[in-house]
Amino acid sequence: MEANPTDNDTKIGLSIFALGGVFEIGKNMYVVEYGDDLVVIDCGSKFPDESLLGIDLITPDIGYLLQNKDKVRALVITHGHEDHIGGVPYFLKQLRVPVYATRLTLGLIELKLKEHRLKKTELHEITAASELALGKLTLSFFRTNHSIPDCLGIVLDTPVGRVVHTGDFKFDLSPANGQYPEIHKMARIGEEGVLVLLSESTNAERPGFTPSESLVGDKIMEAFQKARHRVFLSTFASNVSRLQQVVDAAIRTERKLALMGRSMVNVVNVALDYGYLTMPEGMLIDVKVASELPRDKVAILCTGSQGEPMAALSRLANGNYAQMDLLPEDTVIFASSPIPGNERSVAAVLDQLYLRGAYVIHGSGSSTGMHVSGHGSQEELKLMLTLMKPAYFVPIHGEYRMLSRHKELAQSVGMDGNDVFLMRNGDVLDVTRHGAEQNRKVTAGNTLIDGLGIGDVGNVVLRDRKHLAEDGILIVVVTLSSDEGTLLSRPEIITRGFVHVKESEALLAELNQRVTADVSELLAGENRKWSVLKHVIRKSCGSLILERTRRRPMILPVIIEV
Amino acid sequence: MEANPTDNDTKIGLSIFALGGVFEIGKNMYVVEYGDDLVVIDCGSKFPDESLLGIDLITPDIGYLLQNKDKVRALVITHGHEDHIGGVPYFLKQLRVPVYATRLTLGLIELKLKEHRLKKTELHEITAASELALGKLTLSFFRTNHSIPDCLGIVLDTPVGRVVHTGDFKFDLSPANGQYPEIHKMARIGEEGVLVLLSESTNAERPGFTPSESLVGDKIMEAFQKARHRVFLSTFASNVSRLQQVVDAAIRTERKLALMGRSMVNVVNVALDYGYLTMPEGMLIDVKVASELPRDKVAILCTGSQGEPMAALSRLANGNYAQMDLLPEDTVIFASSPIPGNERSVAAVLDQLYLRGAYVIHGSGSSTGMHVSGHGSQEELKLMLTLMKPAYFVPIHGEYRMLSRHKELAQSVGMDGNDVFLMRNGDVLDVTRHGAEQNRKVTAGNTLIDGLGIGDVGNVVLRDRKHLAEDGILIVVVTLSSDEGTLLSRPEIITRGFVHVKESEALLAELNQRVTADVSELLAGENRKWSVLKHVIRKSCGSLILERTRRRPMILPVIIEV
Repeated sequence: MEANPTDNDTKIGLSIFALGGVFEIGKNMYVVEYGDDLVVIDCGSKFPDESLLGIDLITPDIGYLLQNKDKVRALVITHGHEDHIGGVPYFLKQLRVPVYATRLTLGLIELKLKEHRLKKTELHEITAASELALGKLTLSFFRTNHSIPDCLGIVLDTPVGRVVHTGDFKFDLSPANGQYPEIHKMARIGEEGVLVLLSESTNAERPGFTPSESLVGDKIMEAFQKARHRVFLSTFASNVSRLQQVVDAAIRTERKLALMGRSMVNVVNVALDYGYLTMPEGMLIDVKVASELPRDKVAILCTGSQGEPMAALSRLANGNYAQMDLLPEDTVIFASSPIPGNERSVAAVLDQLYLRGAYVIHGSGSSTGMHVSGHGSQEELKLMLTLMKPAYFVPIHGEYRMLSRHKELAQSVGMDGNDVFLMRNGDVLDVTRHGAEQNRKVTAGNTLIDGLGIGDVGNVVLRDRKHLAEDGILIVVVTLSSDEGTLLSRPEIITRGFVHVKESEALLAELNQRVTADVSELLAGENRKWSVLKHVIRKSCGSLILERTRRRPMILPVIIEV
Repeated sequence: MEANPTDNDTKIGLSIFALGGVFEIGKNMYVVEYGDDLVVIDCGSKFPDESLLGIDLITPDIGYLLQNKDKVRALVITHGHEDHIGGVPYFLKQLRVPVYATRLTLGLIELKLKEHRLKKTELHEITAASELALGKLTLSFFRTNHSIPDCLGIVLDTPVGRVVHTGDFKFDLSPANGQYPEIHKMARIGEEGVLVLLSESTNAERPGFTPSESLVGDKIMEAFQKARHRVFLSTFASNVSRLQQVVDAAIRTERKLALMGRSMVNVVNVALDYGYLTMPEGMLIDVKVASELPRDKVAILCTGSQGEPMAALSRLANGNYAQMDLLPEDTVIFASSPIPGNERSVAAVLDQLYLRGAYVIHGSGSSTGMHVSGHGSQEELKLMLTLMKPAYFVPIHGEYRMLSRHKELAQSVGMDGNDVFLMRNGDVLDVTRHGAEQNRKVTAGNTLIDGLGIGDVGNVVLRDRKHLAEDGILIVVVTLSSDEGTLLSRPEIITRGFVHVKESEALLAELNQRVTADVSELLAGENRKWSVLKHVIRKSCGSLILERTRRRPMILPVIIEV
């Protein structure tokens, strides 16, 4: 599989960099470039934090790829999670290249492309046994396991040497879905020699070995056996192995299965179509039908384990799910733990469920056994490093402290700290047969998606939104006569998001007086430029409002000349 | 101490309710009312969640108290945490009553009153041994421990019977500050007979017994002994016992102490003045001076353990703290765990600290031993219930699932579930010698504080802010001639927080055309009311913008007639 390099080939540099995924959680995108050939690995998205008002999604800035589009041979996807595929439609709208992924991953990508009405895309199904020749790069794969089936690690052979990208992984040696990690293949890859390893760092701060998914199955079965009424179970829809374990528990306890939530319906359908999920004919029923069956004959898989306010579970908890009620003593299982930042919304849903008298099983992972991580802990990360024994190591997929911890783990298995590179998005690692160095950058950043716009909301717009959000807006319309340059009427002052109208009447009257006086004075003088006029209006209103209310609404002077 | 009731007295009802603190975390306020006498316990605040745009603080709605102000005998405070004293200045601005609290608590309240320039308030210092006669209510106290010194439980004797309010508590049997919980007194109170117990529920979901604060001292000492350079330690300023343990570790390792952050300086000064914190003369030095000492001779206490972006620790991590630098291999200790909702901001600060090469000790509580909760766990809550053996029990201070879990704990120590009342803010428990019932309500709710305004921001204003925050605003100014009712010029269209101006030029031109056409058509017809005109402008713009961008900015038509 190793390429047979000519002398010339080894002089060309091999470059490796992230366009997303390091110094952050989410929007993974890694690039391996050799000469005129470039392969992109993954194209994820992430959700904005509260400071990005009104933004729906963040994807990687692919400016570098657009500038080098003739080199881009392929987009290769390791697995079907949002932080690896969420940006694919936006990517393909800007850059048409062949996409390679496994069967389930492709199924999930196709759902997205359909939503975006993207047609004529070039999608290729691969397996862990595939081999791809993409220019001077040869790609092969190895199977890993994670919290979604069909995950790949990627081996990229280049004339300079071999690059390995692990994708997301754990070493689940008794996986619930029978997709064992290909450890022997990994050992062989390492033995043949790895120049650069890129390995994921999500759980680098977590000691030990992540428990097997099959343990969750036992806990789910126990809960189903104890439950006297309906059982609702919420988990990430993409965790198909866990869905299968729920199906198994439902079969064993003679319950039919219904689905609540769009992404649950979508994923289950893809997984059933492609054979990743199996259940007896007639077991899957409509929610409406389920609501009419005896309560101990029904199990429901639903979305909303992160407390998302519009998801099925929140609506059920609030009594807003039209076709299904939550009744006292129904069981609700959170087979999940909150993603950092979602704790409060999860707590709000929990409270609603308790209020309705549900028997709730929650608590982060280990305490209930209803959830295990899909990412390997420290011992597994060390096992991967040991199997691959790379010359150079780039920890990827994590915030800085995780990457930094991952570096320490590499040192603990014998690597020299100088051979480990902690890179930001856009930092380039240039590798030759003689060494590796990190001292240049390519463009990298966030592309903000708001509605249909890709990247048309920038800092100024966001700063305005933040200002509007905090103190509202005050619009002052002043009408001048174009002939004489005098005030034609009293200014119109309109506010939104400021204070109750009834509370602010006196203040508005006072503002009106002051603006009238200040503008009239200005107009009587020499300097009657609009910019000065606007400045005076902002100043008069701003200082009075600050004094009276300690607030600073956005003040927008509008001058109309008729 | 028990009042000697006449027959008449026992016919008057005893009423108990929360105006804040149940079905939520924060803004605690409980009321005990007997006939014409009413005592308020605590007056807390809480921070708004992201949905309350621009709001600084939430305090209890005290409408009921304002309506019954002649009855209000006192505001009694259990301890000096924000969720118990944060609302005091706003309360006293509306209702002047005597305030009773322990020495440290009063010191912290006075800091607030000074900030609000509130003078001539009637503050009375009490101790656990005090007794107060307030109308027909007699108050006495017992000492508890918690994560701030000088905490009280309150005993209210009424002609109907005895009410006990625990305040916040744990049973720390080896407290770092020597303030032991008064268990014998509690036993005596219970033995004499408690009619109603109000007990806090924060850790009702947590099994076992909360570890002692003194364990944290050992860990702090270890970390100080290992540290080779500066040590920064961040914790809640109000945890004075922990501050003392830091002082002790600094003394032992021959370090001077400096303070960073306004609330740290404030609390340390109050605690030193009042003797809650002791250290050798000359130990406390200025930050500037500390920055010039050898790095192994300095310890710094700082605010910011919750990742607050403007607090000392964040500024230090970002290199924005003028008088002090963080250098590689300095030690930074988080003696805290993130409050739900703060996980992301804490993670951001951690990352910055790692990036600067600091040796960081963090991780929630038990993993590092650098933090223990100030609230009792299940076994302690059961101990309190056992000591007090009340006839009726009202779990307070917690979200619903905590209250509900606390009810189960009461049942586990032998109470009848019918004697436990889970009440929302405003629900009234009416108690006589013959029984207790909960079937009426008083006004309760949130008062939103924005700048100087108390409660002048309501739902409409917040809805507007949210709308503005998500999609921005588009203002359309149309100028009509008052004589002929025709359009005097092209409409002015101004946007803020919508999209980049350069991206939206074509769209704005198109909007202008459409508005001009639609308004002209309308003006040519019969129905020329302003309301119709505004409706047409909103509709024309709204539909076009939605089609082109999938966004829904606030559209504000302004009509000027000249």
